[in-house]
Amino acid sequence: MLKTAVVGTGFIGSVHAKNVARHPGTELAAVYDANLDFAKRAAATTGTKAVADVAEIFDNPEIQSVVIATPTNTHVEYLRRAAQAGKAIYCEKPIGLDYQEAEQAVEAVRAAGVPVMLGFNRRFDPNHAALREEVKSGAVGNLEIIQMTSRGPNLPPISYLATSGGQLRDQTVHFFDLLRWISEDEAEEVYAFGAALVDPKVAEVGDIDTSIVTLRLSRGTLCQIDSSRRTGYGYDERIEVFGSKGLVESRRQRARGVSRYVGDKVIEDGLHAGWFERIEQSYYQALDAFVSAITNGTPPSPSLEDGLKAQLLADKATESLKSGQPVKFAK
Amino acid sequence: MLKTAVVGTGFIGSVHAKNVARHPGTELAAVYDANLDFAKRAAATTGTKAVADVAEIFDNPEIQSVVIATPTNTHVEYLRRAAQAGKAIYCEKPIGLDYQEAEQAVEAVRAAGVPVMLGFNRRFDPNHAALREEVKSGAVGNLEIIQMTSRGPNLPPISYLATSGGQLRDQTVHFFDLLRWISEDEAEEVYAFGAALVDPKVAEVGDIDTSIVTLRLSRGTLCQIDSSRRTGYGYDERIEVFGSKGLVESRRQRARGVSRYVGDKVIEDGLHAGWFERIEQSYYQALDAFVSAITNGTPPSPSLEDGLKAQLLADKATESLKSGQPVKFAK
Amino acid sequence: MLKTAVVGTGFIGSVHAKNVARHPGTELAAVYDANLDFAKRAAATTGTKAVADVAEIFDNPEIQSVVIATPTNTHVEYLRRAAQAGKAIYCEKPIGLDYQEAEQAVEAVRAAGVPVMLGFNRRFDPNHAALREEVKSGAVGNLEIIQMTSRGPNLPPISYLATSGGQLRDQTVHFFDLLRWISEDEAEEVYAFGAALVDPKVAEVGDIDTSIVTLRLSRGTLCQIDSSRRTGYGYDERIEVFGSKGLVESRRQRARGVSRYVGDKVIEDGLHAGWFERIEQSYYQALDAFVSAITNGTPPSPSLEDGLKAQLLADKATESLKSGQPVKFAK
Amino acid sequence: MLKTAVVGTGFIGSVHAKNVARHPGTELAAVYDANLDFAKRAAATTGTKAVADVAEIFDNPEIQSVVIATPTNTHVEYLRRAAQAGKAIYCEKPIGLDYQEAEQAVEAVRAAGVPVMLGFNRRFDPNHAALREEVKSGAVGNLEIIQMTSRGPNLPPISYLATSGGQLRDQTVHFFDLLRWISEDEAEEVYAFGAALVDPKVAEVGDIDTSIVTLRLSRGTLCQIDSSRRTGYGYDERIEVFGSKGLVESRRQRARGVSRYVGDKVIEDGLHAGWFERIEQSYYQALDAFVSAITNGTPPSPSLEDGLKAQLLADKATESLKSGQPVKFAK
Repeated sequence: MLKTAVVGTGFIGSVHAKNVARHPGTELAAVYDANLDFAKRAAATTGTKAVADVAEIFDNPEIQSVVIATPTNTHVEYLRRAAQAGKAIYCEKPIGLDYQEAEQAVEAVRAAGVPVMLGFNRRFDPNHAALREEVKSGAVGNLEIIQMTSRGPNLPPISYLATSGGQLRDQTVHFFDLLRWISEDEAEEVYAFGAALVDPKVAEVGDIDTSIVTLRLSRGTLCQIDSSRRTGYGYDERIEVFGSKGLVESRRQRARGVSRYVGDKVIEDGLHAGWFERIEQSYYQALDAFVSAITNGTPPSPSLEDGLKAQLLADKATESLKSGQPVKFAK
Repeated sequence: MLKTAVVGTGFIGSVHAKNVARHPGTELAAVYDANLDFAKRAAATTGTKAVADVAEIFDNPEIQSVVIATPTNTHVEYLRRAAQAGKAIYCEKPIGLDYQEAEQAVEAVRAAGVPVMLGFNRRFDPNHAALREEVKSGAVGNLEIIQMTSRGPNLPPISYLATSGGQLRDQTVHFFDLLRWISEDEAEEVYAFGAALVDPKVAEVGDIDTSIVTLRLSRGTLCQIDSSRRTGYGYDERIEVFGSKGLVESRRQRARGVSRYVGDKVIEDGLHAGWFERIEQSYYQALDAFVSAITNGTPPSPSLEDGLKAQLLADKATESLKSGQPVKFAK
Repeated sequence: MLKTAVVGTGFIGSVHAKNVARHPGTELAAVYDANLDFAKRAAATTGTKAVADVAEIFDNPEIQSVVIATPTNTHVEYLRRAAQAGKAIYCEKPIGLDYQEAEQAVEAVRAAGVPVMLGFNRRFDPNHAALREEVKSGAVGNLEIIQMTSRGPNLPPISYLATSGGQLRDQTVHFFDLLRWISEDEAEEVYAFGAALVDPKVAEVGDIDTSIVTLRLSRGTLCQIDSSRRTGYGYDERIEVFGSKGLVESRRQRARGVSRYVGDKVIEDGLHAGWFERIEQSYYQALDAFVSAITNGTPPSPSLEDGLKAQLLADKATESLKSGQPVKFAK
Repeated sequence: MLKTAVVGTGFIGSVHAKNVARHPGTELAAVYDANLDFAKRAAATTGTKAVADVAEIFDNPEIQSVVIATPTNTHVEYLRRAAQAGKAIYCEKPIGLDYQEAEQAVEAVRAAGVPVMLGFNRRFDPNHAALREEVKSGAVGNLEIIQMTSRGPNLPPISYLATSGGQLRDQTVHFFDLLRWISEDEAEEVYAFGAALVDPKVAEVGDIDTSIVTLRLSRGTLCQIDSSRRTGYGYDERIEVFGSKGLVESRRQRARGVSRYVGDKVIEDGLHAGWFERIEQSYYQALDAFVSAITNGTPPSPSLEDGLKAQLLADKATESLKSGQPVKFAK
């Protein structure tokens, strides 16, 4: 059975640790966190050991794979170290805050020849995956319009936004990846409108909280992604693909299926309170795909290159946002 | 063009008068009501003449068809007169309050050989009609369970209930007809549970306001019809047919298609405020079917016999309600 | 009772003629069409007279109001003539093909001081109207994102497109009007992406059939309108308004409410086959608003100025489409 | 931490074992199955030990609680033994096949004074639980009509049916419990219609596969439960409570949230393939309630008495089915 360690046991790292622990194809060999108390807590609830020095993981030849779930600014370093140690890697997105640095990390990992999967877990949401199957089957024909909605329930702390790279790199990047994955196409042109409509403090740290990005793909598909950092109604995610033969939609999800009919209204349960409740299941599915790929010796997907390409889209969209002009991609 | 007169211009008679006036295949020749003022008002809004004596309609050889929309206790008389005068007849349901009397009227009409259609307009609701088409096409296979919901928004006046024949004869009778029409089968056994849960005054006049009727049809299908005289949320009508290959449902209808997402709820527009808003369209469709049948010389449907059979179901269900025992139908 | 004439009895003119005929607050005094046979047909089904010379309408002092439903290139002329004759006017959109000419017609009408309503009938769709009421009530707070979908079932004839002014002026213009009406705000900037994805012949006549228009309004709201000339699934219209307190949506409408559960699918009735089935009701509502305004002596809405402003939006969006650059509106 | 053993590791016992293993408030001390291989398999995937003799569980003072998930005909024996050993007990439903025997087991357990919870896990379905909260809050007023649908995807093996006690005792019993739990009321009268419509072999073993049960509760509520052993479209469960102020519904659940619009249809993902996919989550929620109750020293619910009362309802409904007459409950 594949022995896996989890590096970084904050919120998402702890989720990965639990998933590794309960997955029948892999066992949780160790956990590490810069804060040893965090690591110990995660170890206690999963029945594994916490290590105080991450080298105990990288230098342990029995550990075959690692999940990197540390803060983004350490991804590149851990990717390099894990690659040099010959581990299979599951790395949380994004690769790095800086595109050039990320590109170099990818080079290094590629040179080491280890299998790496990037944690774009939304690809494993059963609804989005079913939508993509419909698209791939040709059921909607040639793709003409793609619409995506990405709206989080609450504005993150301003301190977080200040170092996040901006809404398009931090939030919308997931949807840039979904767009490439669903369309199996690449962007030729992007234009972004954005503003700090939720809170003027967002503008003070140079960020936006509300945006509409439009893109044209190489085969002509027109795309639109709207993002908001704060809804008044939970976590809102929706994808719609319109093609020459029809439309397929991954609908807004309701937290529960209860309706109340009263007076002239029907009151139903709303959306999930947060992004995690909505897509929790996809983390396990993503890990499962990683374990299968490593066990079977096939390349895991999404790849680090997918991560780089989504980051490039986010960078170009950010460039458009700043210049107020559409940006074309070099061919 | 078919010349049609409307006898009785209360609420539903006025609806018929307007529909006759705007239907391209027939023209409104005259209207009559026991209350001449009512007739004059209907005549004014439809551009026809009001007659003070109904004989002016029955004796006028140019008038080829009549719509009977008078109070139920006069249906039998007008059916006989119209039949004797050789008119094609569209008669509002029910045929009469008393089953024996109704049976005799049917005999008389049959003897006269005129075409008659009974106004079970719900058969012409586009949703129910589409459900029946699915059933007839075999899409759900052999019918195993049929469920119907019939719930009106407000308790009618107690004075109305006192002479209505009871909930099963007055309200549920429409669904007894729909059941026969959808299943193309006849009941073998019926059991009814009922009570005055809405208002004890309903019990004082010997009626109920809430009921569940279960039936077994000759080919084995099990059926359930629940009826209420008062919802807190508008007019609620729903049909579900479960068969060996699947399920088909004519869903609850919403008055409008607007959703509001706020907090942890989604608030949508509710059902139609009343039965008329919900099924208004079916009156025109029913008239259209009548005009087509008369014009083409084909027998109109639903027939008077359909009316009799639905009344028999209502009578037997009422018998079960009173005895507290299931009632079997003679073969 | 208000005496109204209908000028132009093609498809939409005939709809107006029928609605005038059945509206209790107005009567249909006459109809005119350049093709007298068309006018005679409309007259026959509505019980009015057809006139061979439109002057018989404009010169008749008993006719108080006119509905102009002729081809767009004659609107300006008839607007002038009707205004000079002192008639109240209901004019089909758009005012004219050319913005300058339209502006001059508006001046002329304003000088005459007659009441004029522009036929942006979608404002009277009960669903869109309910959405706007929610927005006006403050239920969704400050508007942050508005999304609109406008997709017709079938590509119109290429010959029609060649003289239509282009997709943004001909199709999307309705949604530019809805956008102004719902937001009660004006655009500051617009950017349009478009292409002939449905049929290359559309490009040959200089038009597009698929587009995404993004706009920024003066109070910061970000907007997106996608338009297609051809779906594979009927007529698709949807509006979503996202604000600081929640979301309100005027949903896709289904033609009927029937569901079939079979295997691992639920098959439901789809959208309306065409735009007319979807919004037919709004024509009557719009006429009703016109009749009420004229009868009560209040200014009808939407006004000619609303028409001009929607045309300006369409012009600027078309300019952006051609230049490939965002276009800002002069303050 | 509460030490729990699982007795019986067939399909549902294995689910319980996994849930105990991952629940933070309890640990899985041992598993037992009459088939030691089954027990070993369950032990391997949960990291616990398998015991060959169930006495190793009952005699081990460190084990504080047991989950009984063996075949129904052994429940009574294990309930007695666990009670005598002073364990807290979570027992799968039903208590026993025979009502008298079950009653005696309840006496014995009551005498021992140990806390016992009966595994009516549907009470912990988040949708049904939310419906009940609405009902308890008074949101729908006095209960007038309750409708429940219980339809499984596939006919179980005839050999299973032959010893199951019949559809009403084996399948519908869950809904008898839900009915009592939601209404907080007891039945006064029951009438059942049933037949073998799916497969005549079902009749050969004296059972039915399709039924409609109607009940009247002591406060007047009229209830209807329809059950089928085989749909053509997955697992179908639905509850609707109609009261004096409105309606609340726990809707049919869809397996995924994807819609395809094509032609004149909308094709959506259907229901869950089986009952387990639909209510899997409720097993963990039920265990969680049990662990909380035991840890906090509060009585767990649903109780053994709840189990007895649901069995009594099933018995009386079966009596009605056989006699063809309504059955009243002794007060």
